Amino acid sequence: MKYINGGVCAAKGFSASGIHCGIRKNKSKKDLALIVSDVRACAAAVYTTNLVKGAPLIVTKRNLSDGYAKAIICNSGNANTCNSNGIEIAQGMCELVSEYLDIDAKDVIVSSTGVIGQPLDIEPIKDGMQTLVASLGDNSKDAAHAIMTTDTAIKEISVSFELGGKTCFLGGIAKGSGMIHPNMATMLVYITTDAAISREMLQKALSEDVCESFNMISVDGDTSTNDMVCVLANGLAGNLRIDCENADYAEFKKALNIVTTHLCRTIAKDGEGASKLLECRVINSCDKQTAGKVAKSVICSSLFKAAMFGADANWGRVLCAVGYSGANVDIEKINVEFASKAGRVAVCKNGFGVDFDEHLAKTILLESEIEIIVNLNSGKAEATAWGCDLTYDYVKINGDYRT
Amino acid sequence: MKYINGGVCAAKGFSASGIHCGIRKNKSKKDLALIVSDVRACAAAVYTTNLVKGAPLIVTKRNLSDGYAKAIICNSGNANTCNSNGIEIAQGMCELVSEYLDIDAKDVIVSSTGVIGQPLDIEPIKDGMQTLVASLGDNSKDAAHAIMTTDTAIKEISVSFELGGKTCFLGGIAKGSGMIHPNMATMLVYITTDAAISREMLQKALSEDVCESFNMISVDGDTSTNDMVCVLANGLAGNLRIDCENADYAEFKKALNIVTTHLCRTIAKDGEGASKLLECRVINSCDKQTAGKVAKSVICSSLFKAAMFGADANWGRVLCAVGYSGANVDIEKINVEFASKAGRVAVCKNGFGVDFDEHLAKTILLESEIEIIVNLNSGKAEATAWGCDLTYDYVKINGDYRT
Repeated sequence: MKYINGGVCAAKGFSASGIHCGIRKNKSKKDLALIVSDVRACAAAVYTTNLVKGAPLIVTKRNLSDGYAKAIICNSGNANTCNSNGIEIAQGMCELVSEYLDIDAKDVIVSSTGVIGQPLDIEPIKDGMQTLVASLGDNSKDAAHAIMTTDTAIKEISVSFELGGKTCFLGGIAKGSGMIHPNMATMLVYITTDAAISREMLQKALSEDVCESFNMISVDGDTSTNDMVCVLANGLAGNLRIDCENADYAEFKKALNIVTTHLCRTIAKDGEGASKLLECRVINSCDKQTAGKVAKSVICSSLFKAAMFGADANWGRVLCAVGYSGANVDIEKINVEFASKAGRVAVCKNGFGVDFDEHLAKTILLESEIEIIVNLNSGKAEATAWGCDLTYDYVKINGDYRT
Repeated sequence: MKYINGGVCAAKGFSASGIHCGIRKNKSKKDLALIVSDVRACAAAVYTTNLVKGAPLIVTKRNLSDGYAKAIICNSGNANTCNSNGIEIAQGMCELVSEYLDIDAKDVIVSSTGVIGQPLDIEPIKDGMQTLVASLGDNSKDAAHAIMTTDTAIKEISVSFELGGKTCFLGGIAKGSGMIHPNMATMLVYITTDAAISREMLQKALSEDVCESFNMISVDGDTSTNDMVCVLANGLAGNLRIDCENADYAEFKKALNIVTTHLCRTIAKDGEGASKLLECRVINSCDKQTAGKVAKSVICSSLFKAAMFGADANWGRVLCAVGYSGANVDIEKINVEFASKAGRVAVCKNGFGVDFDEHLAKTILLESEIEIIVNLNSGKAEATAWGCDLTYDYVKINGDYRT
């Protein structure tokens, strides 16, 4: 397994582009992305569980019902959600891709992110299509830029790995939580690979992976209407097609998990207003589900997130969040430690506070990536969740936008 | 039903006091409260569902197992939670009350609020007992002040009502969410009444009431380790004892609900850093549970809370919170309106945005009490939840305490 450059264009037969078409006023911010596979690819996706679903998501779900796709189009600046003509516009975007790439409109994945409740004008997209298609190439970074909203950095990664002697590539781009009035946080992730894998196994790999990756991050506890993670696998690596849970499947899942975990960490770290990444690792749990509940509860606690912003070793808030997580744990067995590049400090043992070096704790918590280790001392399972601190800037971004 | 003065001392046979005994360094902040009934009273209580439970709560639960109590002691400045000697100290506080009032230690309700994980020194309490007991009188406000942490105002209310020709009184005090390092939000509510009611009916009334009152408020989604609501009913009003669900019971519940709803609103409005009260009223729901889920989800959304701070009519975030509430609702039937003293504005109809007067919406949302009306158009049930906006000060109070 090797880290390589290329993002969604690392895998054979994938090209991408990102341009400014005019949905956004700011001309220096790209707002339209396209990712294309030279050949039809197996496609797997997972979607938001919010009952309010963006129109693009409904169209994508319909298009992916046969398990194949060839292109992904995504605009930022408008979520095309809660608009009465939403489906029509999302469908229109697929038809534009169909026309310009000469492919079936049903082979297009469509997403939108940004403002909700404001009609999305298709004209700028129509006008931009020629440039968008002409720009297709090894341009993963352009696509990653075009899908950003209030993200402060592009999110991209790719790896290579071997399957039966054949080198395969798998890479992805993501956007994290951002807002433009009036909308909500949205997360979009696109992953491409040239590994040959059946639709069923691809969906299985993705569905299993998100339980440990994207379902374990939280910026502010709000589940978006437009969240989507999708993977295209075009098989051009020439490996023996994966169609059961064999060693190749395990290797594929490993590659997928490296990419998704990286994207999770970058999304959490670049959460709205965030100044630091919080990684809560729950260890020695009786089972994985319990560990997961505890880890998510900790990184979702507003009180704890605010304490981390202040570099305050407030372990009582960790214990409190464990206590209301809904997980069945024995509080009097719990140890808590904080760690970062600057060191490691134990703050709670068997559910009670221990004396600790406040200066060391402060030094550890002033770093930009903080690990919170919750040891349940009740078994061997573990889980990790990622979040970020709660800062003045979160309130500013989400409260002051129009004032 | 009449509003009257007196708080927890409005009912016959109840006295209270509040003093500074020295748990806190700031001598102008009272830190020890006592509420006493002249006669043994029926007692009912509900407690936090957090698995981490403050030691005072464990001792109180044990003491109330017989359903009677005569006194309530509460200190602020230290939660006596996650300390290895917690039970011993809480028990010691009950024994001090027992000694000074010559009552059974088992008839004492004990609470603590403030710092967790730091041992509570019983000496200042011991030293303060004589003054505390000597100060007993019509001093509900002193007790309300003594239980405050970062609350900015005392929370007190009382009403009178008639049961079978006898005038009864029911009043309460509360503290809302506050913090002192390292701790967590805590809510404490004490209610007294001279109405005669059986223990069983008192507990039933309280348990039913909290579902619509204290379980419907949220400041930051963190469930405290020390939350407690308790009611003492000493029967001195001389009414025919309520021992079944008759008309008197209904009248008693009405009085209780007026008091608890008022305390809920004041707790929410005085949430940490809050600049405004949010009241989400969900109407025309298929059932009460659905309405409750939706209302709580809206007032718990960090994104929506931040938007309210910015007086931003961001109805998309309301719809988003409805969508992930877990309630089974038909999004395309939902109407949303914002209201306050300044007026009322419809922002969403049948799940889609409607044109509205942005200036009017801003004027409405600049008020200090905002109502969010979510009409599910699916039945006749309704529910209300209370919360507050998310402000810079919330982050400041909870993040910057030691920096």
